[in-house]
Amino acid sequence: MKKLLIKNGTLITASETIKSDLLIEGEKISAIGDLHVPDTGVIDASGKLIMPGGLDPHVHLDLPMFGTVSSDDHYTGGKAAAFGGTTTVLDFIAQPDTGSFQISIEEWMQKAEKASIDYGFHMNVTRMDENVLKEIPSLVDQGITTLKMFTAYNGRLRLDDGNIFRVMRAAAEFGMLPMVHCENGDVIDILVEEALQAGHTTPVWHARTRPAWGAGDAVLRTAMLAKQADAPVYIVHLNTRVGLDQVRYARENGVKLMAETCPPYLFFTEEHLERPDGAKWICSPPMRSEEDNRALWTGLEDGSIQTMGTDHCPFFFDGTTPIEYEGEKIAIPGKELGKGDFTKIPNGTPGIGDRMPVLWTSGVVSGRITPNEFVALTSTNAARIFGLYPRKGSLMPGADADIVVWDPNKKVDYGVAVAQHRTDYNLYEGMKLQGFPELVFLRGKLIVEKQQWFGKRGMGQYQKRAPRAAIL
Amino acid sequence: MKKLLIKNGTLITASETIKSDLLIEGEKISAIGDLHVPDTGVIDASGKLIMPGGLDPHVHLDLPMFGTVSSDDHYTGGKAAAFGGTTTVLDFIAQPDTGSFQISIEEWMQKAEKASIDYGFHMNVTRMDENVLKEIPSLVDQGITTLKMFTAYNGRLRLDDGNIFRVMRAAAEFGMLPMVHCENGDVIDILVEEALQAGHTTPVWHARTRPAWGAGDAVLRTAMLAKQADAPVYIVHLNTRVGLDQVRYARENGVKLMAETCPPYLFFTEEHLERPDGAKWICSPPMRSEEDNRALWTGLEDGSIQTMGTDHCPFFFDGTTPIEYEGEKIAIPGKELGKGDFTKIPNGTPGIGDRMPVLWTSGVVSGRITPNEFVALTSTNAARIFGLYPRKGSLMPGADADIVVWDPNKKVDYGVAVAQHRTDYNLYEGMKLQGFPELVFLRGKLIVEKQQWFGKRGMGQYQKRAPRAAIL
Amino acid sequence: MKKLLIKNGTLITASETIKSDLLIEGEKISAIGDLHVPDTGVIDASGKLIMPGGLDPHVHLDLPMFGTVSSDDHYTGGKAAAFGGTTTVLDFIAQPDTGSFQISIEEWMQKAEKASIDYGFHMNVTRMDENVLKEIPSLVDQGITTLKMFTAYNGRLRLDDGNIFRVMRAAAEFGMLPMVHCENGDVIDILVEEALQAGHTTPVWHARTRPAWGAGDAVLRTAMLAKQADAPVYIVHLNTRVGLDQVRYARENGVKLMAETCPPYLFFTEEHLERPDGAKWICSPPMRSEEDNRALWTGLEDGSIQTMGTDHCPFFFDGTTPIEYEGEKIAIPGKELGKGDFTKIPNGTPGIGDRMPVLWTSGVVSGRITPNEFVALTSTNAARIFGLYPRKGSLMPGADADIVVWDPNKKVDYGVAVAQHRTDYNLYEGMKLQGFPELVFLRGKLIVEKQQWFGKRGMGQYQKRAPRAAIL
Amino acid sequence: MKKLLIKNGTLITASETIKSDLLIEGEKISAIGDLHVPDTGVIDASGKLIMPGGLDPHVHLDLPMFGTVSSDDHYTGGKAAAFGGTTTVLDFIAQPDTGSFQISIEEWMQKAEKASIDYGFHMNVTRMDENVLKEIPSLVDQGITTLKMFTAYNGRLRLDDGNIFRVMRAAAEFGMLPMVHCENGDVIDILVEEALQAGHTTPVWHARTRPAWGAGDAVLRTAMLAKQADAPVYIVHLNTRVGLDQVRYARENGVKLMAETCPPYLFFTEEHLERPDGAKWICSPPMRSEEDNRALWTGLEDGSIQTMGTDHCPFFFDGTTPIEYEGEKIAIPGKELGKGDFTKIPNGTPGIGDRMPVLWTSGVVSGRITPNEFVALTSTNAARIFGLYPRKGSLMPGADADIVVWDPNKKVDYGVAVAQHRTDYNLYEGMKLQGFPELVFLRGKLIVEKQQWFGKRGMGQYQKRAPRAAIL
Repeated sequence: MKKLLIKNGTLITASETIKSDLLIEGEKISAIGDLHVPDTGVIDASGKLIMPGGLDPHVHLDLPMFGTVSSDDHYTGGKAAAFGGTTTVLDFIAQPDTGSFQISIEEWMQKAEKASIDYGFHMNVTRMDENVLKEIPSLVDQGITTLKMFTAYNGRLRLDDGNIFRVMRAAAEFGMLPMVHCENGDVIDILVEEALQAGHTTPVWHARTRPAWGAGDAVLRTAMLAKQADAPVYIVHLNTRVGLDQVRYARENGVKLMAETCPPYLFFTEEHLERPDGAKWICSPPMRSEEDNRALWTGLEDGSIQTMGTDHCPFFFDGTTPIEYEGEKIAIPGKELGKGDFTKIPNGTPGIGDRMPVLWTSGVVSGRITPNEFVALTSTNAARIFGLYPRKGSLMPGADADIVVWDPNKKVDYGVAVAQHRTDYNLYEGMKLQGFPELVFLRGKLIVEKQQWFGKRGMGQYQKRAPRAAIL
Repeated sequence: MKKLLIKNGTLITASETIKSDLLIEGEKISAIGDLHVPDTGVIDASGKLIMPGGLDPHVHLDLPMFGTVSSDDHYTGGKAAAFGGTTTVLDFIAQPDTGSFQISIEEWMQKAEKASIDYGFHMNVTRMDENVLKEIPSLVDQGITTLKMFTAYNGRLRLDDGNIFRVMRAAAEFGMLPMVHCENGDVIDILVEEALQAGHTTPVWHARTRPAWGAGDAVLRTAMLAKQADAPVYIVHLNTRVGLDQVRYARENGVKLMAETCPPYLFFTEEHLERPDGAKWICSPPMRSEEDNRALWTGLEDGSIQTMGTDHCPFFFDGTTPIEYEGEKIAIPGKELGKGDFTKIPNGTPGIGDRMPVLWTSGVVSGRITPNEFVALTSTNAARIFGLYPRKGSLMPGADADIVVWDPNKKVDYGVAVAQHRTDYNLYEGMKLQGFPELVFLRGKLIVEKQQWFGKRGMGQYQKRAPRAAIL
Repeated sequence: MKKLLIKNGTLITASETIKSDLLIEGEKISAIGDLHVPDTGVIDASGKLIMPGGLDPHVHLDLPMFGTVSSDDHYTGGKAAAFGGTTTVLDFIAQPDTGSFQISIEEWMQKAEKASIDYGFHMNVTRMDENVLKEIPSLVDQGITTLKMFTAYNGRLRLDDGNIFRVMRAAAEFGMLPMVHCENGDVIDILVEEALQAGHTTPVWHARTRPAWGAGDAVLRTAMLAKQADAPVYIVHLNTRVGLDQVRYARENGVKLMAETCPPYLFFTEEHLERPDGAKWICSPPMRSEEDNRALWTGLEDGSIQTMGTDHCPFFFDGTTPIEYEGEKIAIPGKELGKGDFTKIPNGTPGIGDRMPVLWTSGVVSGRITPNEFVALTSTNAARIFGLYPRKGSLMPGADADIVVWDPNKKVDYGVAVAQHRTDYNLYEGMKLQGFPELVFLRGKLIVEKQQWFGKRGMGQYQKRAPRAAIL
Repeated sequence: MKKLLIKNGTLITASETIKSDLLIEGEKISAIGDLHVPDTGVIDASGKLIMPGGLDPHVHLDLPMFGTVSSDDHYTGGKAAAFGGTTTVLDFIAQPDTGSFQISIEEWMQKAEKASIDYGFHMNVTRMDENVLKEIPSLVDQGITTLKMFTAYNGRLRLDDGNIFRVMRAAAEFGMLPMVHCENGDVIDILVEEALQAGHTTPVWHARTRPAWGAGDAVLRTAMLAKQADAPVYIVHLNTRVGLDQVRYARENGVKLMAETCPPYLFFTEEHLERPDGAKWICSPPMRSEEDNRALWTGLEDGSIQTMGTDHCPFFFDGTTPIEYEGEKIAIPGKELGKGDFTKIPNGTPGIGDRMPVLWTSGVVSGRITPNEFVALTSTNAARIFGLYPRKGSLMPGADADIVVWDPNKKVDYGVAVAQHRTDYNLYEGMKLQGFPELVFLRGKLIVEKQQWFGKRGMGQYQKRAPRAAIL
């Protein structure tokens, strides 16, 4: 089996920082320690940090929406992720409108065949009946151990509280983890309709029609349902101070509730949506206020928030002009679809590749979080919560050799020219970064070296996930 | 005009305690002060406290339920109230299944013709469409300024969040006050069905199928809807610690949210429902834990809870045996209807007459609240919140001469033999009370003297209420 | 006895709003109601609000400090107060450095002989020994029922926690109320010394050397001591969000803790101290941040804060230039004493006359608080808490006829030209007020009519206060 | 170098669980992974858990107190610790009454020469002046990076707030960590004196004279001082719900505050002090209520509390009767010293050996915390916080080979007969444990195998600690 020895680096895990060599054998980390291995390739990682490859627990690749599709597929998206240090992503499968989960699973499995990095799937549950309930345990057998539900998007994605409760109990029974998108769908629908009738069409109305308190209320509602179901629960993309207050309330009162936030919610506000190019910041839930930004930072610092996802779902700002990508000219309709009607702006922002470098600079370099907390937030916690541990999120022997060699001194002027997402803009345009991935390995294979790509279409593998995973 | 002078008493208002005479002219208090009025009847109230007649903001008289009817009607219920010091009640009108509010208003007005004390009405909104929305302002003209909604009782009484939000906005527009019954209807329905299927039929399952956290979650949901609607809101019968935590959270975060609790929630727990006669304690939301009892007391003490209602809705424990009442033998089916099926136990407890004496002893005599806070909680705050002020809830000149002369030294062994409710049990059986009404006046007329009744069928008057009332 | 009838006004009390006449006989309110009194003067108060005269529970008149003296004495200060609607003030007596409280009581009684409005005294306890402890009950006999202590000003005013605890227990025993100035004296002293050594001499260093969290910590410390002593306690001049959080924590956990804030803390921040004339805003505790301003407003709105004092302790900004006052040229050294050394700036701001008009406009006109809450905050609550009730703070018969006839429509461009304080600046310069006192009566005598003064030197009377007063 | 290979076990670190071999070379862990090492001893750890040796951050060995001495010295105490899985302890050096820290350091170094396991020292700072301040950085050079202070024990150990603040700033400057014992010394002294005067001499008065709220107040005070000093801070032996509330408040508001609790505070209450043998539970701060027990568990579960110490400071319950220990008859005066005067009962409980087994059963087996959290709480977090990481608290290559092989299925009836402390009682007498150490290694040497001791007097080594350690 092919061996590779990384010497002289500093291993950073979720709880430990240690100078140690690391041996890759085939696809696995086989040993760490003071290692003397004859006949093997050696990489000198002096002055570098060795971290587990990032795990982005929340992405949407190749997702049809509003008559177009999110502009990164499993190949381009995974590649962009890898440039930012991420080697595994969890995508969401849409439940089919009728019939078995199986229909969608096959469809998504097929989409993902081209994947450039490893991937797993969450299952959306947006429709419930006895057949759906009966089919849930079969998901576990296929390595899908999470059930995403929505308290918003009435008539499309939302389940009522009773069905969320039912799903949570099934989840508890089979060791699965419910995930909840927290907003108040009822109120949103009313406000949206009224805004349009009143002629309010600009991007900022996307935020104005989605009450911030609705996100907070839905967190407590979710906590209540989970408590009653005796299930753990995971809040996706927490974006408000009120929501964080309720996350803390739930956790301090014994609810097994975990929370994810996404980088944009730490930086941007509704004012960004008021800009002429405000559509770039459109996603759901929306950007909020500086008070919310600050609160979320404290939530990261004190451990109330356990993971950092991206909700990566990019669109071109101008999807009418073809741009070159992977050797072809691409024009995928994008944010311009919503000109004159904010409800038609495709929802989503790019971020899969930004996540780790942006959080390193803003979190670690600033002193807000430690390198270990960075690893926990971007990789290990998600691996543990989502049943990929110890295969992913770990530098321990036996783990997949998904490894980032991080150069803590590298300075980068960040923006669309550096980021590798298939889109024409970047939210962090002009941000000065310090610290960036230098080498990225996927199961032992070098896929990124500095700004060069060595990965291949289809080299990403599907990751079955284990039930009864950790509750953090 | 007939005059009556009450001399030498101590007036207790919501904020003041003062030795003063009080002059009644006709139906009104015409003056207070050091009064020398020739040719008038005089009552010497030395050693007694003069308080405004109580206002019970939450009663259900003559209410059809589960094939029977709440056993106090507007005559007997008002009379029982008066013996406890209460001279005005607010009853709830059921929205008709189809058609105009007007249908029900006429029905309820007719039921109340026999009323022995003054009364007003809240309107339940349990069905929404454009016609309903249009009719809302007409309620204000008729003196109905409150709109009660439910987050539970799916398919019967519940409105979804969107419709609650719509009603709240209408309320805000017309100066009305939304009121919300806070529980999670979805989860209750599921748990009830399962409990029955599992053969759980005893009274305690009423509590076990109604999650306490559901009540708390619904408070925050209500707060969110009110915040978004820019409406004030009133939480009825708060019964949990979690709910109180959320009341405080909402108020500290600027939501105009007020809360009511009821005496039983201060004293009783789910364990009472486990007794052989547990059905006596069945109402919704149910009795909870000692921790909840304690929390609600602190809510009363620190002002987080503004009013004390009763949710009076009595039934006989044994409705099969006729008992004598007002000179006739009465047998109204009661709690026995639910033998073998807790869902068929009529929901409700007696309390209209217990409210003031029980709170005086447990709250004032114990030192937890002041006499002024007692008046605020049992009369003035409700009068202000519900637009009856300054006609009711006040001892100020111009107010209706609804007056209780309270003997703070009177000792009473309380129970069904003393309370005047038309039912065969009392929740406070055996409680030692200190302090009790001695005289009760309704608009200047003596209706109670010690344990003797001087009121008459039909002397109660309908009270139109004013919009844009106080927010406390 | 001379009678005066105020007709057609609207009485505003702490809990009630009522159209009623009000009869003054001699110094007292003798009756309210629909009054027909022959042979009496009549004032028509149509369109006006009748409120109890304000009670400012926290003033420092004629107080020696830093080699000068606060520039309002009991005559000029009371007069300024009256123009703003306040008819009673509570001043603080300094405990003598050695010997009996009696020495200071006599001194302060003498200073106050010229008082233009009614007054009472709190007693500072800044030195403790067995003799002091023994003398405490004698204060009650003289109508001094409050004991002010400091957790700051080491070596001058501060008592250690043990002695605060001892005083609190004595207070509990004799029905007195401890009051606490909450800051962390130890840390302040260190920071001040260092700032001076570092050459930081400008006014803003006054704020920078007094940690905001120290104020919050001292609130919880005070709550703890009161809980252990089973005493009520009153926090003076609450100025921080952290402090308010702890006020709520204490109250929700059953501590009998009440809190006062002062108007400047609702409006101004440390940035005001950075201005060239920053010394104008110097007082202790200092102005803080906008977050603190906002928090204090919510504390007023939700009842966490019960009273509004002023800590009135004015100095001239430029005390070197004589100005004309009461017919003489006055030059009292003021803020200029601290040029070049912020620790020498006399501590204090004017405010006795601003309090009610400023709070009316910013609180009532803005909709944040009701007129009744205004009365509670500016008069009744303090009267109740400090044992002056029902003589003061009330419009009830038997109360002193301290009455403000308030014109809610009067517009005033406020500032030093309107305010009557004996100083050369006003913190609210340029503020547009709506609502202002039109007539002010002190025990039945008209002392202010619009901007005209009818009071007299020495007409203010000492007010003995009752122990075992209300806990709100 | 001698090698030892532990095969087939499951490594448990603070964040990871992984099947892996582990190689010990000499005193170090040299590698983990799938290891094939010729010519080495092999231990088969199938079915066993491999954890880093425990680190008890809070012990008092050989500590003179009240005319006697804590009954475990560095030999017996370390041995008892090892039987429970702990391989490193941090003891506290008393600052000498006069003169240099160096005097005490030498004394403590000498006491510890007999140590059976590794050890480090915290330095008490109980006296402050310029010399003390100047000497602080020299401690860092000697590997003492923590400064323990007390808000209680006036006149003996306490520093006033100002001096705590000064020490904290020095700590911040030199990368040291202040630690604070949180109680209100002033109030304790008063209550103790009074209790004795009133003839209250039994053990429970120890608790009754130490207010629980005083502990909570001191947490916020400490947080405030740390915030102002911009220093991290560590709260020792948190024992109250109010204290935990304030820990959370501080952390959510950005203070770098960490907290330790000790096992007894999770199990015992003041009622245990009311027993005839109540003296067994005497330590400071004292046992509190069941509400406090419950709160502390939630603090462990949600991460608000980061470490589990013991405050091990054992005394014999009956120190008059010699017992056999290490081959000699020992009689060390103990709890009986306080017969008839609770203030003379030596303060402290045994616990150094109980800590890990008791927490495993009550925390991990019960499902409250994960095995990883167990390792974090008992070893890794303390190693990181106290600058011993990555040498201690880790299973990573390069770490000291301090290893516990834990048998998760071992059942033990716990009590004094099993625990190895040199005392005649155990607080957990009769507790049924599941999970217990089977093998314990100290720097590669086997020191415990089941109930057999292989360690030696003096084999423990002094551990210099690094400054600027982690903040969790």
